[in-house]
Amino acid sequence: MYKVVQKETIKADRFTVIQEKVAKDGQIAPYSYVTIGFGISIIPFVDDDHVLLLKEYRHPVGSWQYEFPSGGIDGGEEPSQAARRELLEETGYEASELTELGFTYPSFGSTNEKITLFACRATKMAQPKREILEEIKMEIVSVDQLEDLIVKGEFAHGAGQAAWLKWRLLNERR
Amino acid sequence: MYKVVQKETIKADRFTVIQEKVAKDGQIAPYSYVTIGFGISIIPFVDDDHVLLLKEYRHPVGSWQYEFPSGGIDGGEEPSQAARRELLEETGYEASELTELGFTYPSFGSTNEKITLFACRATKMAQPKREILEEIKMEIVSVDQLEDLIVKGEFAHGAGQAAWLKWRLLNERR
Repeated sequence: MYKVVQKETIKADRFTVIQEKVAKDGQIAPYSYVTIGFGISIIPFVDDDHVLLLKEYRHPVGSWQYEFPSGGIDGGEEPSQAARRELLEETGYEASELTELGFTYPSFGSTNEKITLFACRATKMAQPKREILEEIKMEIVSVDQLEDLIVKGEFAHGAGQAAWLKWRLLNERR
Repeated sequence: MYKVVQKETIKADRFTVIQEKVAKDGQIAPYSYVTIGFGISIIPFVDDDHVLLLKEYRHPVGSWQYEFPSGGIDGGEEPSQAARRELLEETGYEASELTELGFTYPSFGSTNEKITLFACRATKMAQPKREILEEIKMEIVSVDQLEDLIVKGEFAHGAGQAAWLKWRLLNERR
């Protein structure tokens, strides 16, 4: 553990950059990181062998990306509520048989971000309710096709990869 | 794609927060994200069935975390050079039989961060050369023990999970 001897925060929209001086073993060094709200990511199984994927334009990386439905946890929400809400909003599918798969830290050297992972059975219920900037396409693919997309580098979604690894390991151990 | 109609940048140490107004289909909305240097993460196999893990104190999440050796790509470096350098600096092990495993986007809704993934054969050569704040322990574990740590949530390192998923899928398809 470090002792924080100086701390400055810079707020910018949904990010807060923390610039600290921390002490360890009598030495002092700078440490900066970003804080951001926590999130969820969910694997929607439409049957035993097929999952629902999103393909979304991701402005920070300037390209269309395959991913599992994901989003932020709103104030007062449990992670499982956020998972059900995001799935419904982004896809119009409702979650049943929700399984929590633990969590992943996307980048714990740079941010406090923590993403809770889920899998569920997903059933089409309604039209998606998207925000202005959300450019999203939906695709249903087999588990083999999903793994092809991961191998070929077309599914590079960090939280989605973590969720898929955990799902696989848990199922192999049943 | 969005058209950027207004852009403000806030620099804070190694982070730049980009606050934009972007236009899509005639509507304008705010979009903010963080830019940060790209990185690498590497799975060091000490033999066919054992990997070298780090356990490092990660200040942004306030706890000790298992992870694979990882770090930033310095100016002018190829990702593979950064992987060899970080492995040697953090562990004192030298990489041979380096295999690139593609890349992962840890959080493409919030940052442009891109981590190139590798696996290698790792051989002990020297003492680690760590920075002041790096509090790191090393452990050699079997592949089964690693997967136990992932299932139990003790290995929650996003880039490391992505690397392990890709390694597994590539090996199953050989």
